[in-house]
Parts: sequence; C-alpha cells; structure tokens
Amino acid sequence: MTQLEAAKKGIITEQMKKVANDENKDEKYILSKIKEGKIVIPANINHKNLSPKGIGEGLTTKVNVNLGSSKDKEDFEFELKKLEIALKYGTDAVMDLSTGENLDELRKLIIEKSPVPVGTVPIYEAAILAVRKYGFIGKMSKQLLFETIEAHCEDGVDFITVHCGVTLNSIERIKKEGRITNVVSRGGSFLVEWMIYNNKENPLYEYFDELLKIAKKYDVTLSLGDGLRPGCLKDATDRGQIYELITLGELTQIAWDNGVQVMIEGPGHIPIDEIEMNIKLEKSLCHGAPFYVLGPVVTDIAPGYDHITAAIGGAIAAWHGADFLCYVTPAEHLRLPDIEDVKEGLIATKIAAHAGDIGKKIPGAIDKDILMAIARRNLDWKKQIELSLDPEKAKKYRESLLSKDEDACSMCGEFCAIKKVRDYFSSK
Amino acid sequence: MTQLEAAKKGIITEQMKKVANDENKDEKYILSKIKEGKIVIPANINHKNLSPKGIGEGLTTKVNVNLGSSKDKEDFEFELKKLEIALKYGTDAVMDLSTGENLDELRKLIIEKSPVPVGTVPIYEAAILAVRKYGFIGKMSKQLLFETIEAHCEDGVDFITVHCGVTLNSIERIKKEGRITNVVSRGGSFLVEWMIYNNKENPLYEYFDELLKIAKKYDVTLSLGDGLRPGCLKDATDRGQIYELITLGELTQIAWDNGVQVMIEGPGHIPIDEIEMNIKLEKSLCHGAPFYVLGPVVTDIAPGYDHITAAIGGAIAAWHGADFLCYVTPAEHLRLPDIEDVKEGLIATKIAAHAGDIGKKIPGAIDKDILMAIARRNLDWKKQIELSLDPEKAKKYRESLLSKDEDACSMCGEFCAIKKVRDYFSSK
Repeated sequence: MTQLEAAKKGIITEQMKKVANDENKDEKYILSKIKEGKIVIPANINHKNLSPKGIGEGLTTKVNVNLGSSKDKEDFEFELKKLEIALKYGTDAVMDLSTGENLDELRKLIIEKSPVPVGTVPIYEAAILAVRKYGFIGKMSKQLLFETIEAHCEDGVDFITVHCGVTLNSIERIKKEGRITNVVSRGGSFLVEWMIYNNKENPLYEYFDELLKIAKKYDVTLSLGDGLRPGCLKDATDRGQIYELITLGELTQIAWDNGVQVMIEGPGHIPIDEIEMNIKLEKSLCHGAPFYVLGPVVTDIAPGYDHITAAIGGAIAAWHGADFLCYVTPAEHLRLPDIEDVKEGLIATKIAAHAGDIGKKIPGAIDKDILMAIARRNLDWKKQIELSLDPEKAKKYRESLLSKDEDACSMCGEFCAIKKVRDYFSSK
Repeated sequence: MTQLEAAKKGIITEQMKKVANDENKDEKYILSKIKEGKIVIPANINHKNLSPKGIGEGLTTKVNVNLGSSKDKEDFEFELKKLEIALKYGTDAVMDLSTGENLDELRKLIIEKSPVPVGTVPIYEAAILAVRKYGFIGKMSKQLLFETIEAHCEDGVDFITVHCGVTLNSIERIKKEGRITNVVSRGGSFLVEWMIYNNKENPLYEYFDELLKIAKKYDVTLSLGDGLRPGCLKDATDRGQIYELITLGELTQIAWDNGVQVMIEGPGHIPIDEIEMNIKLEKSLCHGAPFYVLGPVVTDIAPGYDHITAAIGGAIAAWHGADFLCYVTPAEHLRLPDIEDVKEGLIATKIAAHAGDIGKKIPGAIDKDILMAIARRNLDWKKQIELSLDPEKAKKYRESLLSKDEDACSMCGEFCAIKKVRDYFSSK
C-alpha cells in the first residue's frame, strides 16, 4: 500500500508519524494532506535505511542536492564524498544524476548510504543503454525505457523524474512561438529527439498507466519533470512551459486516482517579478501538488555565482509556496560541481528555504533567528557560532581577525553600538 | 548652486547630461526628477575627478562598497587595494567608514583616487576626536561635530550619512516597545549615548538648518541615516523604526526647500514578506526620495554567508523600488572584510541590483541576459565568459574541467540538450 492509499483508508503509517513528529504537526494533518495530494512522503518500500521526509503544504521547505558521475568523470569515492558533505550540511534529499558507465552500481551504493530520500532520472540510463545497444537514443525501445524505470524502483529509489509532459503538442507550441534556448532539460531533449525520429508520442505520456503500476508497486513518488522548462529569462512563462504544466496537472489527477504520489518540477530561469505567478499557477493547475523548483535563477549573467542567483529566486519561490528547492551550485552552467561547490550550493539553498519559511509563516521558523539575535545582543560569540548554518565558516571568520576587545568584534572595535546603549534600554 | 537648485531653475548641468547619457534617458527627465527630489546626483564641488552617477526613480539600481580602517587594522594600502577591487568590479559608489587614527588622511586619499561618488559618516570621526579630547563621546560639543562635518564636505565627500532621525521621541518609542537588539547602528549608538548623557535633543536634528547650510555650500547630498534600524528580523518594522522614518520624511521636505539633495537610508534586517511594504512606506513617507538600503538580510542565522542573505533581500528591495543597495560581505557580523570578501560582497550585490532592475522593467536591463542566452544556445563559450559579471571566475571554472567535446560542457558531456534539439527548432 502506498502512503497515498493508506491515507485514503485513514491509516496513519510509521512514515506519517515520523513526519508529523519532525514537523511538529498533528498526525491527522499529515494524513489529510497526503490524502489530498498536497503532501508527499517519498519512501520506496525497498529503501531500507530511509528516514522519511515530508514535502508539501504547511511543512518546512525542503532542499535537494544533485550528485552524479559523467563519462568524463566517474569516481565513486568522489560522489560518496559529495553525499557525505550533503548529509553533513543538512540536505533533505539527494538525486543521483549519473551518466557514467557504471551508474547502476553507483545508484545502489548511494541508496545504501543515504538516510534521506533518493531521486533519479531513469531516462538518463535508458538513453545510455540505447546508445550502447543501438548507437542512437532515437532507437530506444519502449521496453528498454520501462525496464530501466522498474530497475531504479526495485533498487529503492524514492522519487523519479519522468518528463511525461513533453508531448507532440507541447513541443509544437515551442516551435511555433519560438525560443532562444529551446530545450535545456537533458531528459527532455532525449525525449524530443526520440519523438522527432520516431514521429511518435512520448512513451512516458502514452503509457502513463504502465508507469503508474510500477510506481505503485514500490511506492515511488513521481516527480513530473519540466522537460520544457525555459533555459533563460527571456523564454520564461511561455506557451510551451505552461502547456506542459497543464498536461502535468491532468496526469497528477490520474496518478492520485491510482494511489500514486506526485510532485511537479518547475523552472529554472524566471525574472524576479514572474516567480510568484509561476508558483500560484502550479498550485492551481496541479491542484496543490507539491512544487519542486530548480532555482529559479533570476538572471543569466552570473555564471560562477548561480548559487546566489538561485538563492534569490528560491527564497521568493519558497515564500510563495514552493515546497522543495533543488540546489544550484556556483559551478552551474560551467562544469560539474566539486565538493566545495556542493557545500556552497547547499548552504545557499538552505538560506533560501529558511528565508522562505519565515515568509510563509511556518510556525517556529523564526525561532533560531530570535536566538541568534539574543546571542548578538549579549555578544555571546560561542552561541552565535553554534547557531550558524555553517559554524565552521563563522568560526574561521571570527578567529581570523579577533578584536583586542574579546567580547566585541573587529567590525566596530571599541565603538560597539550594542555595548554603548545596552544599559539604557531594558531589553526584552 | 546645487544640482537641486539648478533643476529648480531649469538649468541642465554637466552632471545631469552625463547621467542622462549613461542611463539612456532624456536630459529633461533627469532634470524634472531631480527637481522633484526623486533623483539625486551626489557631486561635491570639491571632488575634482568625479564621474557623477544618478540615483533614483527610473534609473538602474546602484551599489555601494564600504571601505575603512579600524583602530585594530589601519593599513592605507589595504584600503586602497579594496577601492581598486571595488572599481574593477563596477561599484557605483564607495563609503569610507574608517575609525582608525589617521582617518582624515585616508579619506583625502580615497576621494583623490575615486572617480565614483564617495560617502562618509562624519560622526565617526567626531566621536573619535571627542574621545581623544575629552575621553568620552558624551562630551562631544556641537561645535566639534559640525566642524568635523564641514571638514568632510570641504575635502570633497559627495554624500554624508547623518542620523538626524535619532530623536528623544524616537528612542522613547524603542524603549517602550522593547527590542532584542536595541540600536545596532554605530552612528546611531553614539548619538543615543550623547543624548542620554546630556539629556538633550540630537544636535543633527535640533540644528538641521546649520547642517543644510554646510551641505548646500558644497552640494553634499544628505543620506539621512537610519540610526534606529532593526538589528534582527524580530525587531523589523517596529515603532522606533517607523517613527524615525516619519521624521526623516519631514526633514527631507525641509532640505528640498533649502536646495539640498537627500537620500534616505533603510534597513537592515527584514523578513522577506515585509520588504515590499518597507520600500513602499519609504516612498510614501519621504515623498519619493531615493531609498538607500543596507541589505536587507532575510535571515539572521547565516553569518559567513550574509552576502547571500543580503542579495535575496536586496533583489526584492530593488525590484520594489529601492534605488541604491549597500553591499554586504560574507564577513558581515564577524569581522572587517578582506579583499576577497569585498569582491564577493560586491558581485552578490550587483546580482541583486540587476535582478531587481529586470523586475522593475528598467529599459534594456534584460538585454545582456538575452545575449547570454543566445551565446548559450550557440555554445559560444568565449562570449558566455565575456558577458559574465565576473569573467575571470567563469573562465576558471570552465577551464578546470573541460569536456572532451570542446563545444559542449562537462555538465552533460555528449548528452548535451542544446545540441540534441538545435536542428529541430528554428530558433529565433
């Protein structure tokens, strides 16, 4: 029985109890929101060491870290080191986006070592197998695609990205309207290539019922991918993107009717003034299904700093209702991330999620900020460092240039505003 | 004659022409907005090598970099190196916030070497001189304070922060309501200390007419400081802050009547959902005077990453109408910034300003993003690096892990979405 089927029957599962406890919510609240499809708990029955997380309405905004090898760089130790860093700095989920040679082995290792939900994009592996077997993605058989998907599910993957909304109709919308960057989703481009070559509908759309059967069997949450997301600000919120979203909304209801949990993936590259609208549109068209956004970045001109452009967009998105933020690292648009990039990207995304949670008034979200403010008022440096998102970095900064005055700081030295007026104001 | 007086007389100055040209605006637009007080051009008659900048309605959002020594770290070369980096990465202004021993010398050097407007906070020097002379800030004479202000103006400082809104009435509001962090503005705390000790009104408020005379003589723009800005999210938008803002609005109109240009300084620490309201409140209470905000940071728990927390707040502020963003570095709340911190802080702030400009539909703001999108579509790496806010960093990333496929990138290697579908879509 999936979490959604259990919820429909009024059964509170162990996973629901765990989420209710983590989020300081009533178990009945979690159950009712899962029943409505507004909360998901990605929890594959085969992911044995999983500590489940809830994603959706009323819960804290979650963050995801992408891992994964490529043909150019396939190093299991390196990927597991990234996983370790991601867990250390508090990621809520990881996705294995490998496109290397032995990606099935790496996937099994990551699932084994990850207590947080693991996601994958099975079409990457299907495409690689198709190239290996037939020399060309266009020749991928439907059977190969679905067997690969089932293999991921059997391994214990908790959520899979499936680009079911990349249809003949939706790519026609893009072709007619015109775009600068066309298709920038890797999975999306595989499917477009396949559809053009075969002049056939996307098998993930056409055989959605078969996909549902597999997902249901293992309780894998479908993360309906935005294969047609805009690849630059100028392409944002166009007919192709919104047509795909409409399709994803229709598929969401079919999945719910079949007891399968669903999230919706979102862009990408969006001007700052269109983010709120994009979030509200998803919530409306997809009936409140959790929204998983990639960034969004709010400018295209800052490669090397896209963890910052994405933190700006992600914070606004989370505030307006996005439930799950995919991290973006400083290496985005330039190369695969290294360990330091993973850390920087994760912390920037956690800042965005937290700022958003304060904005959407998640109960208790601001508590740690209040404790930090009190520690600052008291010039309690030990506590300030302890409360920091990255205590090591804060400590390193603090220690690198100590003031002569131990309880003040080097910023103001003897002219410390806090000390000067502390006695006058009776502080709360 | 100040820029404001000239505008009132319908005279288009050289500075207005330069700003109109830089911003691709009609000279008459600039003149009319200066006349209304909605644009300022900080341009001290004694800042000989100044290349003036406009700040305000309809113009691109400007960014400021803080420099300055402290008693613990007084190194002129280090400060001038910071200035050099700030200019290299395109700051629109610098403020010298020195509190070291020989800060007058350093100030003169910075003005001499800076083609961008220079700001200072004269009360820092006045306080230091008072301590040197009388051992205590409380004993600072009104004469010493105003002489110091005049010295800064005579040296060629283009804008000065004066905390005129820190009044007996406004600090009473804070005491009654209660705050966690009380007063965190250094200048604000000096004045509070002085006012409590002397049981007298703030001389910058009481003798505002004398301040106006000095500012008018050199055409120094008054940056009316927010000495009572909140020091944490929890204290944001409280009675003390808004009472001070009301006072600053009143003083703005008096300054305008006397031909003196004015900006308003704003917070600070604000929850993400209160930023828009804070900007609109300033625009209303201060009759459209340019708003110069410090951040705002949107969470208190990320020391070491406050360039990111401030970029989130700054982008939203700029989008909703803030005209001038003061940078925040990763070192904020921990120590004085080093060279790398200055660069990281400036670029994060430029990202925020640019994202905001796209949001507020500044004509042409998105053009560079469109060029970048085209370069990405064309896999033109040379152009992508050239268009980057920090080409050196982008190049370093790109080169550190080159794909075997020269015109693709290591992120996707052979599975490049852009290449896969390029032929199908007839790109615009």
